[in-house]
Amino acid sequence: MKKYTQLYNTIKDMILSGELAVGEKIPSVRKACRIYNVSMTTVQNAYFDLCADGYIIAQDKSGYFVSDIAKAQSNDNYRAEENNAQYDLTGGTADEESFDFTLWQRYIKSALRQTERLLSYSQSKGEYDLRCAIAQYIKEKRNVITSPDRIIIAAGVQPLLQILCSLLSNKNSVSFPDKSFIQGMGIFKDYGFDVHTRDKDADIIYVSPSHMTRWGDVMPIKRRLELVAYSQEHNSLVIEDDYENEFLYNVKPTPSLFALGKGNIVYMGSFSAMLLPGIRISFMVLTKDLAEKYDEKSYLFAQTASKTEQIALCNYIRDGHIKSQIRKIRRLYSAKTKAFADLLKKELPDAKIEIGENTLQIILLSKFNKDLSVFEEMGLKVFVEKYEGDEIVLVISPAGIPYSEMDIIAKKLKMSIL
Amino acid sequence: MKKYTQLYNTIKDMILSGELAVGEKIPSVRKACRIYNVSMTTVQNAYFDLCADGYIIAQDKSGYFVSDIAKAQSNDNYRAEENNAQYDLTGGTADEESFDFTLWQRYIKSALRQTERLLSYSQSKGEYDLRCAIAQYIKEKRNVITSPDRIIIAAGVQPLLQILCSLLSNKNSVSFPDKSFIQGMGIFKDYGFDVHTRDKDADIIYVSPSHMTRWGDVMPIKRRLELVAYSQEHNSLVIEDDYENEFLYNVKPTPSLFALGKGNIVYMGSFSAMLLPGIRISFMVLTKDLAEKYDEKSYLFAQTASKTEQIALCNYIRDGHIKSQIRKIRRLYSAKTKAFADLLKKELPDAKIEIGENTLQIILLSKFNKDLSVFEEMGLKVFVEKYEGDEIVLVISPAGIPYSEMDIIAKKLKMSIL
Repeated sequence: MKKYTQLYNTIKDMILSGELAVGEKIPSVRKACRIYNVSMTTVQNAYFDLCADGYIIAQDKSGYFVSDIAKAQSNDNYRAEENNAQYDLTGGTADEESFDFTLWQRYIKSALRQTERLLSYSQSKGEYDLRCAIAQYIKEKRNVITSPDRIIIAAGVQPLLQILCSLLSNKNSVSFPDKSFIQGMGIFKDYGFDVHTRDKDADIIYVSPSHMTRWGDVMPIKRRLELVAYSQEHNSLVIEDDYENEFLYNVKPTPSLFALGKGNIVYMGSFSAMLLPGIRISFMVLTKDLAEKYDEKSYLFAQTASKTEQIALCNYIRDGHIKSQIRKIRRLYSAKTKAFADLLKKELPDAKIEIGENTLQIILLSKFNKDLSVFEEMGLKVFVEKYEGDEIVLVISPAGIPYSEMDIIAKKLKMSIL
Repeated sequence: MKKYTQLYNTIKDMILSGELAVGEKIPSVRKACRIYNVSMTTVQNAYFDLCADGYIIAQDKSGYFVSDIAKAQSNDNYRAEENNAQYDLTGGTADEESFDFTLWQRYIKSALRQTERLLSYSQSKGEYDLRCAIAQYIKEKRNVITSPDRIIIAAGVQPLLQILCSLLSNKNSVSFPDKSFIQGMGIFKDYGFDVHTRDKDADIIYVSPSHMTRWGDVMPIKRRLELVAYSQEHNSLVIEDDYENEFLYNVKPTPSLFALGKGNIVYMGSFSAMLLPGIRISFMVLTKDLAEKYDEKSYLFAQTASKTEQIALCNYIRDGHIKSQIRKIRRLYSAKTKAFADLLKKELPDAKIEIGENTLQIILLSKFNKDLSVFEEMGLKVFVEKYEGDEIVLVISPAGIPYSEMDIIAKKLKMSIL
């Protein structure tokens, strides 16, 4: 360990243990050199990182002070504010092992070295080289063949849908597979569309063929072909949100609708689930017509995704890391789902426990006759798919649960349900 | 310089000079150790960075190859694609000296160390600690007093306006000061609003009091008070986009409308102009009513700003860097504007040349009777405010021009106009 990291840890521990109180002044750099018998540079580096991480605050000329610890540990703070559940089983978090932070850091560092490039705004469609890399990637992976000019990047599916809504002013109605995609439905409603569910006659049909239900059902090839044919016949636009397609490894490979279709399909994908929830980079492939409309209206749109992260992701994909990353999380998450399902079967032998087709979700059906608040009281955040009569159906996404805590969570679920 | 950086530079130079051709295989790691008499680690580190920066490409098992140089220098690539102008005088770029990249890198690195935090999605309003830091900052700077709960963060003004439009479904009309804010007008139109200019009777009045015209006029205090009183009387909502307020240092301090108002003002600000165009973090302060509406509909909104950059910015603000950064760019940009205006006066003695109130823009009025394409032919991207009869008015933002190139650009402008 480097000397300054040692000093960093020493002082951090003193703050967290309360040995150094909130608001207390810590030794000046000069004084710390003497106390800890280290160089000025060592102290400066340690103090810098303590500042950057929020443990201490520099005050002009008067020195360094211990910050409010609650603020410093804003992570816990954040969690406490958002919800009181200790264990989130709804899939909102990722596994720490799932992502190589050190590798990503190097790509970010490299991107930040491209200073001249960062001095200007990103192109409205997103960085050109990233769009090239995405075009190559989806061609290999999903047989989606497109020029980078038809690819639009944004910070998530929401801003992509907002751009789409703006381009689709000649359409009136949209249909979603069910009511679970509230964000998407909300956006179309805001833009004045009639929003239906399972309405084949709508002008726009929204589907996520690799995640058709909350428990990850996959649309079979036969239905894909039917949908493509129907939409062509009826001149409807299909939005294919290829959410979680990366996880489909133990079902037969299913071609994308885009690859099956004849030009009336908008293809959407995201990197958040593959990399980190904190990295917001999604993309869509427009139809030829919509791409032309975009170009006409492009002055209306501004890029939302971080330019630094776009540059980093481009090189990360080019170097082949995205492929190994997908293999890694696939293996990790499907093993986790299986392990947790096995635990649940042991704890709740009378419940019906199944793993969803894309191996990310567990469906749990059990007898139940308590108030739903019991889960929260047990420190669990769960998704209740159905609660009718004395039966409950839960959809559980175990991806974010550490192995070490699976046992206690399974027991907590048992106690909540029985 | 570290050994691997030396090796990195050596190979990079060979690639850029053409000594190593596109597609050519470069020595294996083992071979490079012998050639350059360095350790494996040194070569591996150098090759990693060369990959990350796009100069070479790793191909599974067969080794490393020189990439397409055009791709490696994607910055130039990007510029070439976007427009052929060599010099952008429309304010789309920042000055390289304006931003301390090394400092920002340290904050980003520190943010990337908060691995647990990055494993979950950002709160829809944005990171709580950043909202606290912003609340503190706008209180000190603009007397905007608010709780962090009323602050919404997003990746730019556009996504903020989209959220606002979604919350304002009970309003029908909006008024902009002039037709120059096309993006904002476009969004309101997309959401079905009647969009006017300078219509006092609209339900919503959009203003940017620190940048009222393209050349940066500032709304005087008297008109601010009138607008606040009028909007209260008529129950209209004011959206105050406090764009470029940071640059107002040589005009008397003008209070924000938010501080003058009585609760019917939405305040908006952005960090892109202060830091880097590539960093997309903006925020708005909702009125009490709108904040309640947001909370009811919050499940509809997803955060667009990068979580890493939010964490970094929070600590950057807390440590006081934002204040010194503003002082720095203020000094830098107003000196530049003045220097370039002086040069133009020398080159075009018959033109009327003025500096806008916020010292970022130059207004140039001159006789002119050529085709407007002359600017592009001369490699200049300029904003033409007016061209009527034989007179032209240009608005010039010199912020992104390096000092070393001011002379040639002024001469090019002269040749274009005369």
